[in-house]
Amino acid sequence: MSIVVQKFGGTSVGSIERIRAVAEIVAKTAAKGHQCVVVVSAMGKSTDQLVAMAKEISENPSPREMDMLLTTGEQVSIALLSMALQEKGLKARSMTGWQAGIETDHVHGKAMVRHVNTDAILNCLNRGEVVVVAGFQGLSPNSEITTLGRGGSDTTAVVLAAALKAEYCEIYTDVTGVFTADPRIVPSARKMEEISYEEMLELAHLGAGVLHPRSVEAALINQVDLIVRSSFVDEPGTWVKEESTMEQELNVRGIAHDLNVARIKVLGLPNHEHTLTRLFSLLADAHINVDIIVQSEHDQETIDVAFSVAENEGAEAERVLQSAKEELNFVKILAESGLAKVSAVGVGMMTKPGVAAKMFSCLSEAGVRVKMVSTSEIKISCVIDRELAKTAVQRLHTAFGLDGHEETASGKKN
Amino acid sequence: MSIVVQKFGGTSVGSIERIRAVAEIVAKTAAKGHQCVVVVSAMGKSTDQLVAMAKEISENPSPREMDMLLTTGEQVSIALLSMALQEKGLKARSMTGWQAGIETDHVHGKAMVRHVNTDAILNCLNRGEVVVVAGFQGLSPNSEITTLGRGGSDTTAVVLAAALKAEYCEIYTDVTGVFTADPRIVPSARKMEEISYEEMLELAHLGAGVLHPRSVEAALINQVDLIVRSSFVDEPGTWVKEESTMEQELNVRGIAHDLNVARIKVLGLPNHEHTLTRLFSLLADAHINVDIIVQSEHDQETIDVAFSVAENEGAEAERVLQSAKEELNFVKILAESGLAKVSAVGVGMMTKPGVAAKMFSCLSEAGVRVKMVSTSEIKISCVIDRELAKTAVQRLHTAFGLDGHEETASGKKN
Repeated sequence: MSIVVQKFGGTSVGSIERIRAVAEIVAKTAAKGHQCVVVVSAMGKSTDQLVAMAKEISENPSPREMDMLLTTGEQVSIALLSMALQEKGLKARSMTGWQAGIETDHVHGKAMVRHVNTDAILNCLNRGEVVVVAGFQGLSPNSEITTLGRGGSDTTAVVLAAALKAEYCEIYTDVTGVFTADPRIVPSARKMEEISYEEMLELAHLGAGVLHPRSVEAALINQVDLIVRSSFVDEPGTWVKEESTMEQELNVRGIAHDLNVARIKVLGLPNHEHTLTRLFSLLADAHINVDIIVQSEHDQETIDVAFSVAENEGAEAERVLQSAKEELNFVKILAESGLAKVSAVGVGMMTKPGVAAKMFSCLSEAGVRVKMVSTSEIKISCVIDRELAKTAVQRLHTAFGLDGHEETASGKKN
Repeated sequence: MSIVVQKFGGTSVGSIERIRAVAEIVAKTAAKGHQCVVVVSAMGKSTDQLVAMAKEISENPSPREMDMLLTTGEQVSIALLSMALQEKGLKARSMTGWQAGIETDHVHGKAMVRHVNTDAILNCLNRGEVVVVAGFQGLSPNSEITTLGRGGSDTTAVVLAAALKAEYCEIYTDVTGVFTADPRIVPSARKMEEISYEEMLELAHLGAGVLHPRSVEAALINQVDLIVRSSFVDEPGTWVKEESTMEQELNVRGIAHDLNVARIKVLGLPNHEHTLTRLFSLLADAHINVDIIVQSEHDQETIDVAFSVAENEGAEAERVLQSAKEELNFVKILAESGLAKVSAVGVGMMTKPGVAAKMFSCLSEAGVRVKMVSTSEIKISCVIDRELAKTAVQRLHTAFGLDGHEETASGKKN
């Protein structure tokens, strides 16, 4: 018998009705002869409610106590789902993170999984039980309850699938799969049948929002085959797996966008080896994530640096740098908000010449000015005006031949 | 330094505001130089909400999964209270039942505490931390999360106090102590300064409702000094401890009452050694708690049996017996609801002659007919008409010299 890991997010278990629907999906999988390990998140907005209570008590609650608090959300879900499975006549058993053998490091709020002791889960599976594991949580070496931070339940599912040598790992969510672009913006966007880890990683980082990059990384490292699919609609999802037949296909596989972008330009910095280190250390210390960085030499003595950040962190980034103006010794800062980032993603697109050229000409023809560019092996990103983002995504989707009719944006096959 | 265990029930931690108030009480205790172990229940009605969700999924949810579900309630409380303590500048650390070393048997939903491994708590206390422990929960020998059932958090506090050799154990609740009668019925009822375990046990069983009998038993067995006091009003409570100076005091210490009583009479049962065993086994199998039992021999061949039950279990008791009419071979059943039980309680009252006589004459003078009587070493209980219960309690309170003025029903010393 093969082991299948199935993960259901917060909206998928957001009500008693939804929990029953999830139990139905699990029951069908078990009926096919699979040994099922189910990972669930906290119900709907329950985590937000717990966070709100904590914030009422303390502006800056201790990470240890936050983990103690938040892990109750998943514990509620596993108990209720196990009851729902038992109500369907299945043998089911819930497990907290520590009961499931998920061992992490000491870092509360964003712990890394170090090892999974699969004994308890395997014992239950061998007794014919469905095991329902609380996502997002584990146990530190000194028996403290930890949480894995953002994307945590996806990560739990992937590491369990790896440790259990599961046949595959299903990530159930509220969309039907991974699309070539956001269907709300590009009506002709198609659901992909499969996508490589690397492409998924770029899409995840670029705001496609279906899978957290961290869980994709874990899947890549452990070579776990993922399926992203809907818990609301019964239809095939998108496989995320090692690239196979993809390279000879389209060079660009999807167009992603991120509407929450601001740009900060720091002009007239001294052209000195430590300048950039110090500048970005200051931002890192303030927990500001910098995305694209462009540096240009002004002359022998001075350089200009521009970088993009999430728009809501733009003001803070500016404040941090202004307060270090003396130390950094720059001339001035220019900040610009209201920007977006559009990206073309595809494994091996760099081996096909002309992708960048095609992207720029397409944007240019659409009257979209490119303000920053960043490239990697498998993606090109351009920062542009936010109000032109929708047009840009649509035009790029067409330009790279992604418009299609076999699978439409509704997610249903025609 | 002496260890003090403080327990706060659901209403005491029923809101963020209340949790802050509890933190204040704990902070004051710590400031006096005590090492504090705090046991908390789930917030207000949160356990009821969890039960309601489970019942929506299953009429008869698995006890194991119920424990998994319900223990989240206390886990939320310990995290929030620890945050509130930290916000006051105290070092505090929350612990689930298993982290606090509370080892139980295997019985989900009503586990018994078998042992407390105090290492983790003592380590924290020795580091100067306040330890906040989730009440009502423990860990079974095969690492399953268990709950202690009703009165569970009080029991957690008492067993921790015993294991830690605490100086005393404070039970904070929404009343200011133990009274000589219910102050809502007897305005002149006095708060007792102290009461013996045995008296408290009888009062607890008789519906005084302040402490669960089980926790009093645990305190008696382990000789833990308890204080029952209010988390809402700062005033001395009632000590529950080994009797000392009490015996030469009043022979009757308090008047308790229970308004939820029905009586079932089974007439014309065969006078056979197995008859009563079988009858009460049937009721026990149906989980019906029988209180007072009176048996009378009718003649050589037949007996009559009367017993009292909680009124809401009366119909079920009647149904169970009727369905076994053939086997039990009785003539008929008479059921009567609308009854109450009034009890006079006091250590050593049986060594003072005339307590029973005084009780009967007092009730008789008040026009109250006694329908059933039950006595123990330290109490006399009478089943009477419910509508006369208030009068009976008031008259008995006066007759036994309990009316007083030093401490009034408001709980404040004059």
